[in-house]
Amino acid sequence: MVDTSRLFQHGTLALLVPGLFDGTMKVGELLKHGDTGIGTTDALGGEMIILDGVAYLVTSDGKVRTVAENETTPFSNAHFYHAKDKFRLQNCKMFDLEKKIASEYDYQNLFVGIKLTGDFKNVKTRSVKAQAKPYPSLMDVAKDQVVFTEDNSKGTIVGYYSPALFHGMTASGYHLHYLNSALSMGGHILEFEIEDVVVELQPFETVEQHFPIASSDFKQAEFDLKQVHAGITEAEK
Amino acid sequence: MVDTSRLFQHGTLALLVPGLFDGTMKVGELLKHGDTGIGTTDALGGEMIILDGVAYLVTSDGKVRTVAENETTPFSNAHFYHAKDKFRLQNCKMFDLEKKIASEYDYQNLFVGIKLTGDFKNVKTRSVKAQAKPYPSLMDVAKDQVVFTEDNSKGTIVGYYSPALFHGMTASGYHLHYLNSALSMGGHILEFEIEDVVVELQPFETVEQHFPIASSDFKQAEFDLKQVHAGITEAEK
Repeated sequence: MVDTSRLFQHGTLALLVPGLFDGTMKVGELLKHGDTGIGTTDALGGEMIILDGVAYLVTSDGKVRTVAENETTPFSNAHFYHAKDKFRLQNCKMFDLEKKIASEYDYQNLFVGIKLTGDFKNVKTRSVKAQAKPYPSLMDVAKDQVVFTEDNSKGTIVGYYSPALFHGMTASGYHLHYLNSALSMGGHILEFEIEDVVVELQPFETVEQHFPIASSDFKQAEFDLKQVHAGITEAEK
Repeated sequence: MVDTSRLFQHGTLALLVPGLFDGTMKVGELLKHGDTGIGTTDALGGEMIILDGVAYLVTSDGKVRTVAENETTPFSNAHFYHAKDKFRLQNCKMFDLEKKIASEYDYQNLFVGIKLTGDFKNVKTRSVKAQAKPYPSLMDVAKDQVVFTEDNSKGTIVGYYSPALFHGMTASGYHLHYLNSALSMGGHILEFEIEDVVVELQPFETVEQHFPIASSDFKQAEFDLKQVHAGITEAEK
């Protein structure tokens, strides 16, 4: 029996900021903690999205491939999908969805899983280029990101809302990834316009933060918190 | 078989800042997540310390009592005790212990359980007065704290080191509580001087943050993060 009340996180978003991009958990292990999620792979190989227990990677050439169980991730989230709230939404933007959630649900201080399935008028995503050592900072990677857009796209958005208190551990606010149904386009969401989708929300009782305790790079890193917060705001906007 | 690699936290330190002092988890439930820990009880009833599976409360009259399983807590930590590192320390202060840990262990980015057992030249603690509604802020409670000191005290310090990234979710740095062997004095550590103790460290791979998801006070609270950070720094110093 899986536990649908918890969100699992391996690594922190903070550790990506100074460039700790080495994978520290096998994706096969990550998938034991959920069938749904988002993240990235070793060396920032691309934008990962986990749907129905399968991990997909959107690489910087715009292609989508499945991620093998023995590939690794430096930072990822996963949870077992079980929607608490479900509603249909038509002809609106991310801003309208955020407003609706803020006014109708008291989830502002909780971690919440979010899933949108259906038709989008437009989706704009980005992916990052796989990096080589010595790794640059996350901000430098983000400056060099590749942007994709698709009109009249059918697909799924998966991601999380995280409370402001946890900015640094993760990106506060909404952090969403996309994959179209044809498995031909996706990535980290920059913008989207909804045509007709089903929105599902899954508030979590517990967030489980797992650290890469075997990584001496992580353990010895000196994090400058101001830089971490500024870097995340810059790279995840 | 208990899991000694994880630290459990119910509630956040942040929620105490604006005065959300109502207990939201039974202490009996908390004890399922650990035999060792620290926290407080409903209405900030005092400073709680969990040793060998028993929860004790140091109240503002300086007395120590056990906490019943059906009492509740708004904010607490617990873990199953299993020391990874153990060393003897004599004739020094908290500052020296912190320096030793910082120079000899690469735990700065991890949550770490800490336990000191033995003889102290001096221990200075505080406890808080149980509050009534409408609850004041944590800073106002801290201004009215009661301070206790004991020379030549035999007892146990239990608490945690938390990475700076998690300030707000908890108090970053060291957060320690004390209970003497006679069960007659203890509380939240303000200062101490070691005579001869055994120090035990337990770095955690996972921190499990559990939210009071049934509390509408918590869910609807508007946290001012600057105030939260300033309030914690002020109240937990």
